[in-house]
Amino acid sequence: MRQRNKPWADDFIKKHHQLIISDPITYKSKWQALFKNNNPIHIEIGTGKGQFIVGMAEMYPHINFIGIELSKSVIVTAAQKVLESKQENILLLNVNAEQLLDYFSENEIATIYLNFSDPWPKNRHEKRRLTYKNFLRFYEKIIQKNGKVILKTDNRKLFEYSLVSFSQFPMKIEEVNLDLHAEEDIANVQTEYEEKFAAKGQNIYRCIASFK
Amino acid sequence: MRQRNKPWADDFIKKHHQLIISDPITYKSKWQALFKNNNPIHIEIGTGKGQFIVGMAEMYPHINFIGIELSKSVIVTAAQKVLESKQENILLLNVNAEQLLDYFSENEIATIYLNFSDPWPKNRHEKRRLTYKNFLRFYEKIIQKNGKVILKTDNRKLFEYSLVSFSQFPMKIEEVNLDLHAEEDIANVQTEYEEKFAAKGQNIYRCIASFK
Repeated sequence: MRQRNKPWADDFIKKHHQLIISDPITYKSKWQALFKNNNPIHIEIGTGKGQFIVGMAEMYPHINFIGIELSKSVIVTAAQKVLESKQENILLLNVNAEQLLDYFSENEIATIYLNFSDPWPKNRHEKRRLTYKNFLRFYEKIIQKNGKVILKTDNRKLFEYSLVSFSQFPMKIEEVNLDLHAEEDIANVQTEYEEKFAAKGQNIYRCIASFK
Repeated sequence: MRQRNKPWADDFIKKHHQLIISDPITYKSKWQALFKNNNPIHIEIGTGKGQFIVGMAEMYPHINFIGIELSKSVIVTAAQKVLESKQENILLLNVNAEQLLDYFSENEIATIYLNFSDPWPKNRHEKRRLTYKNFLRFYEKIIQKNGKVILKTDNRKLFEYSLVSFSQFPMKIEEVNLDLHAEEDIANVQTEYEEKFAAKGQNIYRCIASFK
């Protein structure tokens, strides 16, 4: 996602350190304490401008959501949406998904959302795709038994790759939807990308997978 | 596939009993002897009017192909195509896929093709879909180690169902292609259906899966 540089982002992030957690390593295995409840924790990796996670948090008030986003200029937009929504079941992390194991302990997470992740189309960048086996290993470590990885994308090649990667890991594929918008689904909270691409008539793909 | 009744089909099938094998049980574990070589055997379940199997047999003369088709009025059309092609590496069986284990022994088959199979869209007909777990059990029994099941279809729901069914069996998904005609592939032999649907702009899906 190409974003204008936002010179005020650093100050904003510092100011809202209770929302955009500056020292997430501190909370490893203590996230529920920080949320002040025992509700399950769902994380979104690549939370972008936050429309999905805010929509989900509103729809599921008894789930704790953590949005992970590497780009400072993007996460501040997500943070503004969270503040507007007044939802208290959302936290944001301005960190890299490669360090997931530093921030979450075994079985700490119930569901992982991968929404419109960068497809990294070149073969030599395969390792950067969020459904590459190294990432699946991270997810397996932090996710609870029967926890789910839910992938949505409009990118055909990434989706094809991910189905094979899930299968070979091996993970169990629970659901495949090759045209998510073919039927109306009020439980489907859309991301910004999803709205834009679906409006252009592009198919939205979804896969739900779990570890064995 | 709705077909006109062909009153001459029975006589035709009797006359060409060396091509449309009338007593396939006899040849269980002896198919290579019937083909008079030791080449691998590929079967197509639901061979329809035969364009795929004849095209494959021409492209791969060192593979033996067996086409299975339940409808008499359809298999005679396939047989006519085989006769025209003069390929000797094709046999046809006018039998039901549910009896596969009567006709083939363990490890006798290298590859199984499922092309544009009936999607049986109603839930109560799930057991009739050729990728239902009971059929996968048959395939597992007759297929060689590392043998592949190759599914092509234009039916989204059948494809989604099949990916989940393969994964849960569990089989290993080796390749997924959600738009087979997006790139030209001279190795892709098209079925009659495939030509027709692809010409209408419908996506053709393909999955290659193997047993673990």
